[in-house]
Amino acid sequence: MSPANSFGSTFVITLIGESHGRLVGVVLDGVPAGYAIDLESINKEMDRRKPGQSKVTTIRAEEDRVECLSGIFNGKTTGAPVTLVTWNKDADSSAYEKFKNLPRPGHADYTAMLRYGGFQDYRGSGRFSGRLTAGLVMAGAFASQVFRAVLPVTIGAHAREIAGIKHEGNVDVMKLRERVEQNPVRCYDAAIAKKMEEAIEKAQKDKDSVGGIVECIISGLPGGLGEPFFNSIESQLAHIVLSIGAVKGIEFGAGFGAARLHGSEDNDPYVVDKDGTITTTSNNAGGILGGITTGAPIVFRVAIKPTSSIGKKQKTVDMATKKPADLEYEGRHDPCIVPRAVPVVEAVSAIVVLDILLAAGVVPRIKR
Amino acid sequence: MSPANSFGSTFVITLIGESHGRLVGVVLDGVPAGYAIDLESINKEMDRRKPGQSKVTTIRAEEDRVECLSGIFNGKTTGAPVTLVTWNKDADSSAYEKFKNLPRPGHADYTAMLRYGGFQDYRGSGRFSGRLTAGLVMAGAFASQVFRAVLPVTIGAHAREIAGIKHEGNVDVMKLRERVEQNPVRCYDAAIAKKMEEAIEKAQKDKDSVGGIVECIISGLPGGLGEPFFNSIESQLAHIVLSIGAVKGIEFGAGFGAARLHGSEDNDPYVVDKDGTITTTSNNAGGILGGITTGAPIVFRVAIKPTSSIGKKQKTVDMATKKPADLEYEGRHDPCIVPRAVPVVEAVSAIVVLDILLAAGVVPRIKR
Amino acid sequence: MSPANSFGSTFVITLIGESHGRLVGVVLDGVPAGYAIDLESINKEMDRRKPGQSKVTTIRAEEDRVECLSGIFNGKTTGAPVTLVTWNKDADSSAYEKFKNLPRPGHADYTAMLRYGGFQDYRGSGRFSGRLTAGLVMAGAFASQVFRAVLPVTIGAHAREIAGIKHEGNVDVMKLRERVEQNPVRCYDAAIAKKMEEAIEKAQKDKDSVGGIVECIISGLPGGLGEPFFNSIESQLAHIVLSIGAVKGIEFGAGFGAARLHGSEDNDPYVVDKDGTITTTSNNAGGILGGITTGAPIVFRVAIKPTSSIGKKQKTVDMATKKPADLEYEGRHDPCIVPRAVPVVEAVSAIVVLDILLAAGVVPRIKR
Amino acid sequence: MSPANSFGSTFVITLIGESHGRLVGVVLDGVPAGYAIDLESINKEMDRRKPGQSKVTTIRAEEDRVECLSGIFNGKTTGAPVTLVTWNKDADSSAYEKFKNLPRPGHADYTAMLRYGGFQDYRGSGRFSGRLTAGLVMAGAFASQVFRAVLPVTIGAHAREIAGIKHEGNVDVMKLRERVEQNPVRCYDAAIAKKMEEAIEKAQKDKDSVGGIVECIISGLPGGLGEPFFNSIESQLAHIVLSIGAVKGIEFGAGFGAARLHGSEDNDPYVVDKDGTITTTSNNAGGILGGITTGAPIVFRVAIKPTSSIGKKQKTVDMATKKPADLEYEGRHDPCIVPRAVPVVEAVSAIVVLDILLAAGVVPRIKR
Repeated sequence: MSPANSFGSTFVITLIGESHGRLVGVVLDGVPAGYAIDLESINKEMDRRKPGQSKVTTIRAEEDRVECLSGIFNGKTTGAPVTLVTWNKDADSSAYEKFKNLPRPGHADYTAMLRYGGFQDYRGSGRFSGRLTAGLVMAGAFASQVFRAVLPVTIGAHAREIAGIKHEGNVDVMKLRERVEQNPVRCYDAAIAKKMEEAIEKAQKDKDSVGGIVECIISGLPGGLGEPFFNSIESQLAHIVLSIGAVKGIEFGAGFGAARLHGSEDNDPYVVDKDGTITTTSNNAGGILGGITTGAPIVFRVAIKPTSSIGKKQKTVDMATKKPADLEYEGRHDPCIVPRAVPVVEAVSAIVVLDILLAAGVVPRIKR
Repeated sequence: MSPANSFGSTFVITLIGESHGRLVGVVLDGVPAGYAIDLESINKEMDRRKPGQSKVTTIRAEEDRVECLSGIFNGKTTGAPVTLVTWNKDADSSAYEKFKNLPRPGHADYTAMLRYGGFQDYRGSGRFSGRLTAGLVMAGAFASQVFRAVLPVTIGAHAREIAGIKHEGNVDVMKLRERVEQNPVRCYDAAIAKKMEEAIEKAQKDKDSVGGIVECIISGLPGGLGEPFFNSIESQLAHIVLSIGAVKGIEFGAGFGAARLHGSEDNDPYVVDKDGTITTTSNNAGGILGGITTGAPIVFRVAIKPTSSIGKKQKTVDMATKKPADLEYEGRHDPCIVPRAVPVVEAVSAIVVLDILLAAGVVPRIKR
Repeated sequence: MSPANSFGSTFVITLIGESHGRLVGVVLDGVPAGYAIDLESINKEMDRRKPGQSKVTTIRAEEDRVECLSGIFNGKTTGAPVTLVTWNKDADSSAYEKFKNLPRPGHADYTAMLRYGGFQDYRGSGRFSGRLTAGLVMAGAFASQVFRAVLPVTIGAHAREIAGIKHEGNVDVMKLRERVEQNPVRCYDAAIAKKMEEAIEKAQKDKDSVGGIVECIISGLPGGLGEPFFNSIESQLAHIVLSIGAVKGIEFGAGFGAARLHGSEDNDPYVVDKDGTITTTSNNAGGILGGITTGAPIVFRVAIKPTSSIGKKQKTVDMATKKPADLEYEGRHDPCIVPRAVPVVEAVSAIVVLDILLAAGVVPRIKR
Repeated sequence: MSPANSFGSTFVITLIGESHGRLVGVVLDGVPAGYAIDLESINKEMDRRKPGQSKVTTIRAEEDRVECLSGIFNGKTTGAPVTLVTWNKDADSSAYEKFKNLPRPGHADYTAMLRYGGFQDYRGSGRFSGRLTAGLVMAGAFASQVFRAVLPVTIGAHAREIAGIKHEGNVDVMKLRERVEQNPVRCYDAAIAKKMEEAIEKAQKDKDSVGGIVECIISGLPGGLGEPFFNSIESQLAHIVLSIGAVKGIEFGAGFGAARLHGSEDNDPYVVDKDGTITTTSNNAGGILGGITTGAPIVFRVAIKPTSSIGKKQKTVDMATKKPADLEYEGRHDPCIVPRAVPVVEAVSAIVVLDILLAAGVVPRIKR
């Protein structure tokens, strides 16, 4: 394992900052030299993650511009650590003072107290705020620029399900980005997106929240990548995906559904093309066998729980008095974070992809 | 990340060996000193994992006795690395020579060729054999003895579902071990176990296989353990669980089901006992919030795909000739590995638990 | 190993920044919660490291104030990563443009070109500038505040030798800090300091430079710390000390001198006090046996080579034309960096000490 | 840092075993696939390290044959962890029982008690025996075979000084191996070797011991290798070298001598060959600048203290009674370990070289 706030073996990221502190950001180590980095492309990804994009996401206006504080010179990586940050605007932390002793059910308020003895920065949920994922988005957008300079890998995520409303159709990973940006819930299918949106609005009116499932596809990776036994591709993706606050599960390929198939159904038969390329006629494996890429797209789905911060009255305990208390939480929170989780899941996938491609020598240490 | 074949940050395990090589085993580093280790208890766990326990598991007779080659002196840990191994009996590798160029669909045969350029030990599936999990079981049984000398943590797993047959009733973690050992499929409910067994036998007759879901419960851990952002409890468990060959998914607490709940349903309300203890009235969080333990039992479920090695005719490609080929695989393989996965999932949980408890200082470096 | 720009196992530091970039600083991970941090104390250490303190150090005026960008809330550590930085003032990089193709003998100019393919930030020597040690000083001053809240460990370094002028007398670690601050070369003995100073001035007049030896003493650590085989105390200290640019050697206790002693001279005999405390009558071991602390002070010495950047004419090669060239380097550089290396060696010692004390559980994860 | 008993980032070794336990050996992870390994070559290195080679080394007869327990198939590496061991013969541990409570001055007996609470395996010094270096020699000999399949790197060490008797002449790295094997002290110069031998015999007669200095040269590495800031070549070499029990110091190139040079003397001037190759006219840098290889040979020297286990009467403390005691130690120990340290220093150098070459992609992950 890397230290607590770091992830990766060759390309290593360290998340810094707090929701209402000076900044949120990320430090990138193991960066290869000579890769052109366009900060505006990173900012575009930041825009996709930011709140206030529509009525179904929180209305707090974050104007997050990414600054690079180290590691880039004349527009290219130098090989030194890259520090990417966005400065926090003056935030109103008074709501957090008010609810400081009333841990939100389903949130990390209570466990953070246990873990850090009450010394954690609780303003805006501190380290446990969804705002921390901004650092992941920066890192992912950076990583994509690096590996795409070498290999045309495409990563696309979308809302497979929100509030129980499922999109079960096929998706074309090449069209994913364009399609999901056409509706606020980031569903591939416009009609289903509409229903998802209505379900979110309904929950919002009830001062409640809903969850969903994000699916991610990584296309263009060669076969033979991955490090069994313990750094299987699934292990690495699951590790970082399950670090994201609201994620409660992950499945690859046929996933939990594979548990109900026969081997003869689940196994993907091999076929050979005229040019000698070996592929499979199905992809229940989700592009991974024995922890190693097959060359087929990697496909995984992520369970996102409903936002824990809700306005509806809930039972809690006053930590100061140790008495039962009612909590009617105030504050601007997404009634559903699935739409904003889409770019975050893409970002962490990109982080893993660069780590793997650097370790395998596919992305060279110097781009000449 | 640790190197490829190692796992852990404070308690670090390295898996060694191959299916038909000299041995399979594990090296344990970061072992605290002065803990009594009973090899017979480890052997009992090995017996639970071994094949041939019933007609629903493979009939290959492994007589696996664990030997300790280092790190234990006068029955106690010394603080030096512990090496635990079991020697492989002379195995017949001829079947593997026969099928050497015919990668089994759904197995790692093909990806191993890509990853290791054909130099992998393919006999008995080499490093990709389920036999490698013997090292995990040794490590887990060892870890349990260490932390249970300090803290009464109970880890129990069971078959929640096999071949689509579900056991949906509640389980008592204290009775889990005893109950699951009363039937060959390791289901908590005897009647459901019977149906699962029949489904497995049916698949076996068809030269096919089935999968299922293993649930694991870790009870007795204090709140406040875990290392967000990137070493959340979920991340650490998912990392090692998804290293196991046939696992295709993991979910915590309400898991994928949480994606269909409202926040007001999913959030676990806090209550306070007369003695001031704070608990929750439900456990949709699966004992983890923000990556940190709440003090409630950790609950997770693991999707196990159907065994990929089946006798039924399948399409593959002859790697020598690059021509399509039919494969009717021979060899003794479990028609369902869920029953044998139960002790393996318990074992990897114990490995993570010791790592976390050592890092937190709950398990001291010297047991005086 | 940690990634390239990180150091530590439990307390992990990552150095960020470049000499003429936006900032230099450090990210600290694995920080325990609840420790009071006084930025002014860190600034005092920064003042000791900064150039322009006297005529024997460079006259570039750095006004380095440390800012904390994350991880401290209400004056105490939160348990989240701490980011400490100092912003670079607008620096004149024109000298570096001029000499860009003329690698300085003895400097990293040439090897940086090889390693980073010419993409390194060469302004002000970029990552290879002594300025990077500012991040080490911040980290060390921070670490000291943490462990001194728990244990009275004293770390003191001093100039043992400069330009061949040796201070061979004994030193009292408790008086070290005060004594070395009374002269610009940081020698314990005022009279010898004067001679060292003259030697440096002589070299400066000749557009040349001199080196020396820094000795460091760590007092107050309990016995029994360290992790053999590979994380011996010597290994950890040597690892970080030899990362510092101009360091070419390290020795512990009797060091290279031990190579000339008999075992009967070098071995430190054990004696027992009236109160049962076991100590040794000498400390040739430098406080470490078998990689583990004995309880006696840790003593080590560090060889510092003469500053490589000198004004005297030197032979080099023009990298653009691949022709021989003469180099008369311009720019403000210390004719001897030993005085400024003193606080840096103390700082890296403090970083190792905190790492070891956290791993051993001596410094608790929460300061209540 | 890696866990305590492991070293390396890409090529990771874990030392297993104890002096009088079942075995000593090493587990190698991150091994690339397809490299031919000749166990007999490894055994030859083991012979160089083994005791009893002459009257100046201990007379305990170790007949150490290396066995490979995993990771090699058909004579080539598979990519899986390689386990190399040698089995301990039945050793007489009675001497250790006798002196169990009388810690030898200068040995790890006392610190091991503190660190492991008395649970350490004290027989034959357990983990603190020089016998553990057998695992390093296996790993080093293995590593050499891997990188020499790709790059003609030559590593040679020799006794620069024993008991104060210095060999100050130049050495030719290509002749080193042959020359040092012609005398029992492994000195390059036969006449000086004779004097060293006499000095060792003299010490032995006095029931005393002597130390010395080993110099090591690594020739054939390209420039541009290394990972500043914290994984400089010096840091990596120093880390592993200072893990070896009797080592008390390390210096690179001009080393401590550089502290007495002027910059104009110490800086190695660049020159350009007719074919455009850039070299230096001297090598005070020891082949490393800014932590990165220059392409010149890496040269470092290691201070070896006199063997701490001596027969001469010494003062110690009886740990059982806490009373002063006299110790006249019995047992077969080298009066000087410098000759046997020579192959160990070569071995650890080879371990670092493979790690660096794998990380840099110079040694490919598959040897086709």
